[in-house]
Parts: sequence; structure tokens; C-alpha cells
Amino acid sequence: MAESIYKIISREEHAKDSIVTIGNVRIGGNNPPVIIAGPCSVESRRQMLETALGVKEAGAQMLRGCVYKPRTSPYTFQGLGRKGLPYLQDASEVTGLPSVSEAMTPRQAFLIAQSAEVIQIGSRNGLNYDLITAAARTAAKFGKTLLLKRQTGATIDELLGAGEYAALQFVRREQEPRILLCLRGTKMGVQQKNYRNNPDYEDIPELKAKTHLPVIFDPSHAGGSREYILPLSIAALAFGADGLMIETHCNPAKAWTDAQQQITPKELQEIIAEVNGFISDRKGR
Amino acid sequence: MAESIYKIISREEHAKDSIVTIGNVRIGGNNPPVIIAGPCSVESRRQMLETALGVKEAGAQMLRGCVYKPRTSPYTFQGLGRKGLPYLQDASEVTGLPSVSEAMTPRQAFLIAQSAEVIQIGSRNGLNYDLITAAARTAAKFGKTLLLKRQTGATIDELLGAGEYAALQFVRREQEPRILLCLRGTKMGVQQKNYRNNPDYEDIPELKAKTHLPVIFDPSHAGGSREYILPLSIAALAFGADGLMIETHCNPAKAWTDAQQQITPKELQEIIAEVNGFISDRKGR
Amino acid sequence: MAESIYKIISREEHAKDSIVTIGNVRIGGNNPPVIIAGPCSVESRRQMLETALGVKEAGAQMLRGCVYKPRTSPYTFQGLGRKGLPYLQDASEVTGLPSVSEAMTPRQAFLIAQSAEVIQIGSRNGLNYDLITAAARTAAKFGKTLLLKRQTGATIDELLGAGEYAALQFVRREQEPRILLCLRGTKMGVQQKNYRNNPDYEDIPELKAKTHLPVIFDPSHAGGSREYILPLSIAALAFGADGLMIETHCNPAKAWTDAQQQITPKELQEIIAEVNGFISDRKGR
Amino acid sequence: MAESIYKIISREEHAKDSIVTIGNVRIGGNNPPVIIAGPCSVESRRQMLETALGVKEAGAQMLRGCVYKPRTSPYTFQGLGRKGLPYLQDASEVTGLPSVSEAMTPRQAFLIAQSAEVIQIGSRNGLNYDLITAAARTAAKFGKTLLLKRQTGATIDELLGAGEYAALQFVRREQEPRILLCLRGTKMGVQQKNYRNNPDYEDIPELKAKTHLPVIFDPSHAGGSREYILPLSIAALAFGADGLMIETHCNPAKAWTDAQQQITPKELQEIIAEVNGFISDRKGR
Repeated sequence: MAESIYKIISREEHAKDSIVTIGNVRIGGNNPPVIIAGPCSVESRRQMLETALGVKEAGAQMLRGCVYKPRTSPYTFQGLGRKGLPYLQDASEVTGLPSVSEAMTPRQAFLIAQSAEVIQIGSRNGLNYDLITAAARTAAKFGKTLLLKRQTGATIDELLGAGEYAALQFVRREQEPRILLCLRGTKMGVQQKNYRNNPDYEDIPELKAKTHLPVIFDPSHAGGSREYILPLSIAALAFGADGLMIETHCNPAKAWTDAQQQITPKELQEIIAEVNGFISDRKGR
Repeated sequence: MAESIYKIISREEHAKDSIVTIGNVRIGGNNPPVIIAGPCSVESRRQMLETALGVKEAGAQMLRGCVYKPRTSPYTFQGLGRKGLPYLQDASEVTGLPSVSEAMTPRQAFLIAQSAEVIQIGSRNGLNYDLITAAARTAAKFGKTLLLKRQTGATIDELLGAGEYAALQFVRREQEPRILLCLRGTKMGVQQKNYRNNPDYEDIPELKAKTHLPVIFDPSHAGGSREYILPLSIAALAFGADGLMIETHCNPAKAWTDAQQQITPKELQEIIAEVNGFISDRKGR
Repeated sequence: MAESIYKIISREEHAKDSIVTIGNVRIGGNNPPVIIAGPCSVESRRQMLETALGVKEAGAQMLRGCVYKPRTSPYTFQGLGRKGLPYLQDASEVTGLPSVSEAMTPRQAFLIAQSAEVIQIGSRNGLNYDLITAAARTAAKFGKTLLLKRQTGATIDELLGAGEYAALQFVRREQEPRILLCLRGTKMGVQQKNYRNNPDYEDIPELKAKTHLPVIFDPSHAGGSREYILPLSIAALAFGADGLMIETHCNPAKAWTDAQQQITPKELQEIIAEVNGFISDRKGR
Repeated sequence: MAESIYKIISREEHAKDSIVTIGNVRIGGNNPPVIIAGPCSVESRRQMLETALGVKEAGAQMLRGCVYKPRTSPYTFQGLGRKGLPYLQDASEVTGLPSVSEAMTPRQAFLIAQSAEVIQIGSRNGLNYDLITAAARTAAKFGKTLLLKRQTGATIDELLGAGEYAALQFVRREQEPRILLCLRGTKMGVQQKNYRNNPDYEDIPELKAKTHLPVIFDPSHAGGSREYILPLSIAALAFGADGLMIETHCNPAKAWTDAQQQITPKELQEIIAEVNGFISDRKGR
């Protein structure tokens, strides 16, 4: 079945894990899991810089921060927009951490490619093939990476089909695909648990058997509550995640979006310590 | 909660069912359920015309046919594209049935608005706010209607939030929102049944309690198999659907897409007869 | 697969629908759907008699009423127990309606067999093979029928496996199995709907393809709310149910159990009228 | 809500974690997670002894082995029955590992109480209140422990209600309840993953917030495949499990039941090593 839906990103095509390099960060294969941290929304120059310094000190290797925010309601804060990009870029330059930001249109993907290292396609647009193709084309053109989140109702094969649309744009420029797949919880299961979404890291073995691309897990959106971030992170790594993307804010209680699921840099540091302990222990065997 | 996510389309704002008028078809309120039928994909002038004549004779009031096809794999037929629009338009004019077609980009929405009466946003783009906004703006400008499908992982409130993005564009032009919401099955449930998606017409009572917009049900995608179309149609009407969208093809076995879930105009006629019997019986009480 | 799990009740063994006869009621095949109605719990002689007269007048053909109640909490009313059986029996005799009552132990199955026509195995015990075997043995011995509800987490094959345990006891006495399978909603799906359980009548086509036994649907437990009983009933019949079991109480507001999902005999009458209209219309075709 | 369904086992009643002591094994609270291992079915004296010696050497603290097997089909092996109990008892005595075995009837619970330390109620009978009550009464009388598995369709509150039925029997004899709750995967979610059941250790935080009883996780039934046992075990411990029950067989390929999910004692040893590494690392913090 795989071959009819996707080829470039399939294990049949490329048996070994592919490694995605972003600045001095290497993701996938035997590399230790990458930690991507930062606020849900870029709110101000100061908030972005303070958070970036915090997550760097905590041990994160990459920075996240969104200026275009897809929101369930048109009446809520939709992100700072273009004017927030310099705040993200500055924070990235000061800390040396490569950054990730979400695009909702081809034009936004272009703008992000000028200011950040990774263009994110969010879960709502996870099967928006037009956007995925446009953003991947931009990423390929400017030497950037695409981070593709799974749509909350997409099967593994649908996620991989979407990844293939992106991969084609890298191949057109004779590049290896620089694509990170990201699981962040689905709506595809029982919702009586206390989770915002149904954590889906248990799909990682199936996903890794089908594709050589690195797989990131986002415990913040999967759980929707800061108390679940640590166990979800350990669990995702136990299932083979190549990295974690954790929403972190210098002052979560005052965050403009996702306040209840963001953590402080200090809390991030504790999580990274536990995660590193777990990893080094596994490596030792 | 409703009021913070959506306002214009809420029952609080407008207690009575809103009626959407498309040509001489009236949808919603006490109007009998509308039947929208036609092929998954427009394939040729002849296929489109033959099918349109067939569904008209079978008793359908509207025509569907897509030229832009979002497909799970980039390696499968992606629709005839722009050159298929005249085939749809001709079939619509010959039969007098208003037509529906899907747009995946703002540009496609514009093109469809020149050839059809209803711009469809498919389930994959059901939370693509940029596209929804652009398509609704185009629909409002050209006197057209928007048909918005539920994303397979979207909650009812997320569907309604997406509907509100669209409604804002009609209000900007001081128009009543011409929006049809469409349920077509979700991935949000057990998948051990023999259905392509988890039929979600049972959400209609909740949806109707929250919004005054008409609600269409698509038994073809919900079931994924022609044998389920009749019971799913009856069930959806029992739960209050204002219409049905049924994939019909003059020669299903040779259909380029969705072959196993399309029916013939003759089969459609039998379904419409059963549906009408059920409805007239209910009206009689 | 079927043959290794179940044989006697499989379609391979017996291609035609089997008909279960209880008094003058015939269930299955082309017989019109049977309506089984009555209170969740037997509460008093008067309540049982008044309700029985009401449901008979409303058009029901069978009576339900439980004296042994499996309850989620040990601190709530557990049923009248043995002393309630004469109330059920009297109501059955006065109205001439055969009755159904639930057993939770082999001993209770024996006692029910002395007072009622149908021994029910409830959903909590739907995979309790010891009880199923004992109750079926008792039913076979005393010429009674077994009504087997699906466990809320059981697959269709698990339900059929349980049915086969029962069927073996009828075959041992060289009888046709007098078994009714009953769907009543599962927990196997998304729970964000407003339903108590996830209605599972959509499984009827799969179930009927695998077994010749009649299938009853219980809209009261599936929906958990009286407003859903009518649409769920129509939907279940559209999918091929051979009967409906509807909780009805002479005074639902004062019911000791399941108050919010019981209806009055008057409401039952309206539902039966709609159901009959739907059926006669279908028969007419 | 808790208080109306359950009291004795609630956190409100007893804020501290309760510790269950079985021989020299202590389960719950700050005790390191217990490992319970052994075959799905007792097959012979030799198989049971060889496996028991193997799991002891691998580091397990308790032994499992069933002689009464609830099987989906009546035509498959139903367990050795009573004659298998001495094999289990001998293996337990030789190794010094306390043992667990499942009862499907009150009589079987009595027999197991004469040969083993823990009476298990399996998932199929997880809401069979009559059996739970009888088995708990027997456990209380003979100084044994009850291990109660969650029914595959039971909510957390339904599991706790079942636990309360058991707890009442210990309280009647003025004993602390010796009850272990066991999660083993549910059917309550999407089934498109490659798992036998939907792993439910993510419910442990909710469960532990509501009850003081120890919680065991069974990765063998949750995953249904040996490759998932390690990640599921780590994940369950990350979410707070007090122990793991892992199906282990001296020769899995020849196991009479559950062949594909049983592992060898050698594989168990590797899992225990990883688990201990993870735990000691967490303790060190």
C-alpha cells in the first residue's frame, strides 16, 4: 500500500533513518532527542528574548514561537503577525538557537523563511496540500526545514501522504527532504480522559516502520495540561521519538494563548534532566 | 462558551432556522430535505451530462461534481482542474440543477464562483481559516453559497468556529450568511466497523441546538460503501438533516475516484423514493 | 474466522434468518419489529401494572421489568429482588404480554425462568461465560428465551462468541437456539457526543451478515436521554433491527433508576406510530 | 461524584497511598514497582516450573499462571482447570514467589484461595458484581488479595465502583482492603493502531487522584505483541504504575494461548533491567 501513497519518504526507498541538520543541531537516527521549546505565541520583544534565554539555559537546542495563530474563534487573538517575526529572529540570534514558526498561507511561509529555520504546518492545515506544497517549495528554495504536524483526524497513511507532497518539492531541487513529522495528539479516540487530545506517540513504531523521516512529539498539545508533560515526554521517548516540542513561557500565567499548558524555563529544566537521565540510562545498555 | 467562539451563526443571535435559497431550491427550516447528487470527480463532458440528466430524473434538486480533488497521495488523479468547470456548468444549465464544486485555494474558489452556485470547502480544509475566509468573501461577492464540511478530527465547536469565519464575510457585505454545514463522518471514534468514517449524524441535535444554519449529511463519505447509503440517509433524516449529498455516477464501476461508494442514478431514485416515503409519513403526523 | 469462534449461530450453518417465537410474538426474519417496553426497575405492584397496561395500549408486544439491578455503586438501589418477580408476573398475565427480566447469577436465572418468558444477560455480564451458559441451560430446560446484551467493550466477534456459549446449551437439548442479541451502545468510540453510550446499530449489517439470530436494539441505554429515543429507533430499524427495547415508566420523573431516559406510555405510543409509519412505508415498496 | 459511587477506596477516605503486602512483597506508595510474570495458561508441571525459575532469575517478584481461561470461543482450550492448581502452587513454593490466578466463578475463587496468594478477576468479569463480591469475601476470609482488572468498556468510575464492591467485603471483616487495580488496555478508542487494545496507562493520574489503591499495568494484553512490552512498560511507570504484569513463557512459540504476546524469561530480564535503570534514575532526583 505504501508505495501507491508515498515513495520518497518510505523505508522501501531509503532504509536508514534520515538525519535532518538545522544549524548545529542534528535530528533523527542515533542522535539524542532534540528539545524544541518556546512560547505558543510571540507576544513582545521582551517576552520572546527572556523566554529564549531561559530555554537555552534549561538545555533546549531549538526555539519555537508563533506569530500567525490559527484560532478556533475569529474573535480571539490571532497572533502578532509579521511584526512579531523580528522578535523571534532576534531571540534566535542572541541565543544561537534555530527557530520554528507556523505558516497558514504560502505568503506567510515565505516571510517565515526569511526569519526562521523551520516552517511549521500546524495540525489544522495538516492535509492542506496546497499550503504544504508551497511551504515545502519555499523551504527547499531557502535551505530551510519543514515541520509537518499530523491533522487531528488523519491516519498514519494520510500523514505520510501529506509528507510526500512536501518531499516532492525537495526532490525537485535535487535535495534530500528536510522534513520533520510531528505528532501532537489526535481526536481519534475516547475523550473521557483528562487530556486535550488523545496522545498518539504509540503510533511512532508504525510510523517509523513506514518512513525514514525523524518524528517529533509535542506533549504540550497532546496533554493540554502542564502536569502531563513529563510522563508524556518519557513515554514518547520510550516509543522512539526523535525529539520533543514543549511550550515554554517566561510567565505562563500571563500567556496570551494556551496558558494552562505552558511551563516555565525552570520546569523545562527539570523535565530535560529527567529526560536526559532516562536516555543516558538507555544508551548505557 | 458558544458566544466566545461564534456569534453570527449561533441560536442566541438568531433563534429561527435560517433558510438558504439557491436558485429555486430552499434549504433548512421546514423545507423538505434537499438531495444533492453527482459524481465525485468531473471526468468528461459526456460523463457529467449523462450523470446530471440521470440524477435529475431520479429526483435530485442539486448537482455536485469536483474538478479540484484533494488526494491522500500525490501520485493519484488530482482532478481535471479548470478545464472541467465548463462540463459542470453545462450539465447544470441543461438540467437546471444548481451545482456544487470544491475549492482548495482562494483562486479556485474564484473560478468556481464563475461556474457553479456553491463553493465547497472539503474536510481536509475544514479548519483552514485562510481558505474559508477567502472562499466566503468570494461567495458573498458573487451571490454564491458556501458549503463547509467538518474536518474529520474537528469537534462541533471547532466546526462552528470555522463557520463563523465564513459568516463574517457575508456580514461585511450586509448579507445573511449563505452557509451550509456538512457532516460526512469523522475519525473520532472506533474504526472497527466496516465504515470509511464514523458516521456523525448523531451530532445533528447538538449542532442544531447551537446554530441556525442548515445541516447537510453526506452518507457516501461517512459510509464509504454503497450498501450503507440508504440506512445512513434515513438515519440522518431521523436526526434532523436538512439535506443529503450523495455521490452518483452514470457508471460507478468505471469511476476514476471513490468507485466503491458511488451509486447509479437508478439506485439514487430508489433511495429518494424511500426517503420521500419516510418524510411524507413523518409530515403526516 | 467465524468458524473457529462460533458455528451454531453462524450464517454458514444456517443461511436463513432464524425466528424466535415467544407466546404469540414472532421475532426475526420478515416479521415486523417487536416493541419491548416497561420500566427499568420493578418498583411496586401498582407501578408495574399501571406501566404494563400503558405500554400494551401504546402498542408494545412485550414487557420488560428488572428486579435484580447491577449498579455501578454498591450504595444505590439494587432492585427489589425476588419479591418483585410476582409483580412482573401479574402484570404480564393481566396484559398477556410476555416479559423479560435480567439475571446476574445462575440462581436468579432459575427464579426468572419461573416468572418470565425471557432471561436477560445485561451488558456488564455480556462476556461472563459461566452465567451465560447457566442461564441458557435454564432457558432451554424451561422453554424460555435468552436475551444477550453486548458488553460495552466487546467486538462483534466477542458478542457472537458469547452467543455461541449460549447456543450450545440449546443444542444439547436438541432445540433451536432461542436467543436474541441486543445492541445497546458501546464505550468503543468518541464520547464527546451527548450520548450515554456510543449507539452501535450501525454494526447491525455486519452482525446480520455473520449470524442468523434476531437483533434487538435498545435506544434507551444507547442514548441515555429520552429525546434521542425516536431518532435512534428509526435509525436502528433503517439498519435492520428486528425489534426495539424501550424503557417506559408510568411516571418517569419518579423512577427509582434511569429517570432521565425513561418515557411515558403516551410518548411510547407516539414513537410506535412513527415507527409503524416508517415500516409500512418500507413494506409498501 | 466520587462519594456517591465509592467511599472506602476513595482518596477522600484515605489520603495516603495504601500498601498491599503479599508475602515479602510490598506494593504501592514509594515501593519500587512490582514485576508479576508467568505464563498466560498453566500447561503442565514442567512448563510452569521452568517458567517460574526463569522469571525469578530474571528478577520478577511474583508469579502468574491461569488454570481457568475465559475464551472468546467455546471451541478453544479453556484452561487445565482444577488439576493445574498444584502445578502453580508447586512452582510458587519452589521459587518463593507469591502467585496470581484468575477465577471466573465463586467456586473457582475458593479453590484458587487454597493454592495461590492473589485471586484475579479478569477483564470480561470486571463488572460482574456477584463474582467480585464472592471473590473478595473469599480473599478476606483466607488472608488473600484481589486483583481486579478493568473491563474493556468500563470508565474509571465504573472500575472504582467495582473496586468498592470488593472493598466492602474486606471491611466486613475489619480488614484493610487488599485490592490491586489493574489496567490492561480498553476498547474505548480508535482501533487503527497496531495494538490489541488501546493502552490506558494514561488514565493512571486520574485513577490515583481518586483512589489510594495500588495500580498495576499489564503491557502484554494492552499491546498484544511482544515488541510493545518495553515501551509500554516504561510509559506506564512514567505515568505512575505501581507494578507490571507481564506474560512470560519458557517457550512462547509453543504457548497454548496468547503465543504472540508472551516473552521468554531472558527477554523479561532485559525489560526489567531497562525498567530498573529508569526507576533508579528517577529515584536519584
